[in-house]
Amino acid sequence: MTVTAIAYADLVGAPAQDVRAAIRAEAYQGHTSGLAAGKLQCNLAILPERYALDFLRFCQRNPKPCPIVGVSDSGDPFLPTLGHDIDIRSDVSKYRVFRDGNLSDEVTDITNVWTGDMVTVALGCSFTFENALLRNGIPVRHIETGKNVPMFRSNIDLVRAGPFSGKMVVTMRPIPAALVDQATRISGQYPQAHGAPIATGDPAQIGIADLSQPDWGEAVEIKPGEVPVYWACGVTPQNVLLAANLPLCITHSPGHMLISDVAEDAETTILKTA
Amino acid sequence: MTVTAIAYADLVGAPAQDVRAAIRAEAYQGHTSGLAAGKLQCNLAILPERYALDFLRFCQRNPKPCPIVGVSDSGDPFLPTLGHDIDIRSDVSKYRVFRDGNLSDEVTDITNVWTGDMVTVALGCSFTFENALLRNGIPVRHIETGKNVPMFRSNIDLVRAGPFSGKMVVTMRPIPAALVDQATRISGQYPQAHGAPIATGDPAQIGIADLSQPDWGEAVEIKPGEVPVYWACGVTPQNVLLAANLPLCITHSPGHMLISDVAEDAETTILKTA
Repeated sequence: MTVTAIAYADLVGAPAQDVRAAIRAEAYQGHTSGLAAGKLQCNLAILPERYALDFLRFCQRNPKPCPIVGVSDSGDPFLPTLGHDIDIRSDVSKYRVFRDGNLSDEVTDITNVWTGDMVTVALGCSFTFENALLRNGIPVRHIETGKNVPMFRSNIDLVRAGPFSGKMVVTMRPIPAALVDQATRISGQYPQAHGAPIATGDPAQIGIADLSQPDWGEAVEIKPGEVPVYWACGVTPQNVLLAANLPLCITHSPGHMLISDVAEDAETTILKTA
Repeated sequence: MTVTAIAYADLVGAPAQDVRAAIRAEAYQGHTSGLAAGKLQCNLAILPERYALDFLRFCQRNPKPCPIVGVSDSGDPFLPTLGHDIDIRSDVSKYRVFRDGNLSDEVTDITNVWTGDMVTVALGCSFTFENALLRNGIPVRHIETGKNVPMFRSNIDLVRAGPFSGKMVVTMRPIPAALVDQATRISGQYPQAHGAPIATGDPAQIGIADLSQPDWGEAVEIKPGEVPVYWACGVTPQNVLLAANLPLCITHSPGHMLISDVAEDAETTILKTA
């Protein structure tokens, strides 16, 4: 079968279901930032059922980095509470497959990896509150400059559940000092998307040695009059899953999120299912 | 051992830990409404581990009636994310024990019923948003009149997970028409406590035939100029658990909630654990 590639620019402004259809058809394999504006995008963790209860407990105990927005039935690839006809085996543009704690493959479809005991856990993503910051006139440096957000391993202990534990990963965004309170209030309105900041100011207070050396993503400039502001990051659960050395788990590739049909500002992340 | 009974009035204004200590000592066996003001109180579901994953999925899919605020490790009676030294076997003033879908016992301690595979799920409770309504000058009729809140079985389908399904139970509070928007906004700030109303006005729209005939609790007067306002109710999960005919499950008795050390207005329900 020949698939005609669709460019990112052609998907900007398209409805969520059209973007997922392009991804399912393998016509689009890029990142999802800026696509399906206004719809919740999700981090993904797909893991064997026998680890799912502990993983849900872990997420419940660490709601800032790991806000649960959807959970599938065991072995069921569909996620009806997050969207119409979402097939998690094909509707994400890029996946990472981990075996025994090591990256095994990066693929655009996991139909061949899916097993009858897999559980999908969808977690909220920072795109939601970044969009809200931008709508309210608060600059977001890495978006302005076309970079990936800088991410840092902090010294903040996560609350353990079963094999899942570790330190919180945080993102950093420089915010003009006069706008920090507003940025805190706005992001705090999105508990399903990491909520209010974890910390502001001195990186040493949360164990970050050098803001110019992020552990993931790219460094951004902090201009005079700006304060570094730290939010809990969706890379946290990926790290925790890796460290737990599961025989098999699957995540999205960074930036290649699941696009849901749930409105970003909905009171809950559960689509009204008829 | 002789226990000196403590009266409700003597516990009003006492810290949460003192109230729990009185309950643990069996010196107080009454309801918890109005106690440990400002602290989150919780509905309880304690069930065998093999049902816990489905029950957590059920709660995640029905966040308005079933807002998850704490989950124990399997077989561990403590809940460190909700409070200091909470022993769920003794720190609730009255429990209901259900076997095969029938009420088996109402007891003040479940140490003898507890087994090594039990999981405790704590869910938010309407006390939180009622306190917020009262603080903001919005009257709450059943509290004014010393009654139990009227509860009704609605026709709103819950989203199924495994053996758990059914219809949503709602509470009704008459609110002056001019204050309905404010009541909606205030309660919406407490997603961990049922959030904004499910419906307002005509009870027939959600399948309620007669507001003077509640299915649980007591009827309250709706005065001229007031609108009936309906919120998702914490009795919903108890009903759903009963209907699932589990061999064993334990809940609190109505009104006899778990008192946590988490502030009602905290951003998350996870106590900072050192």
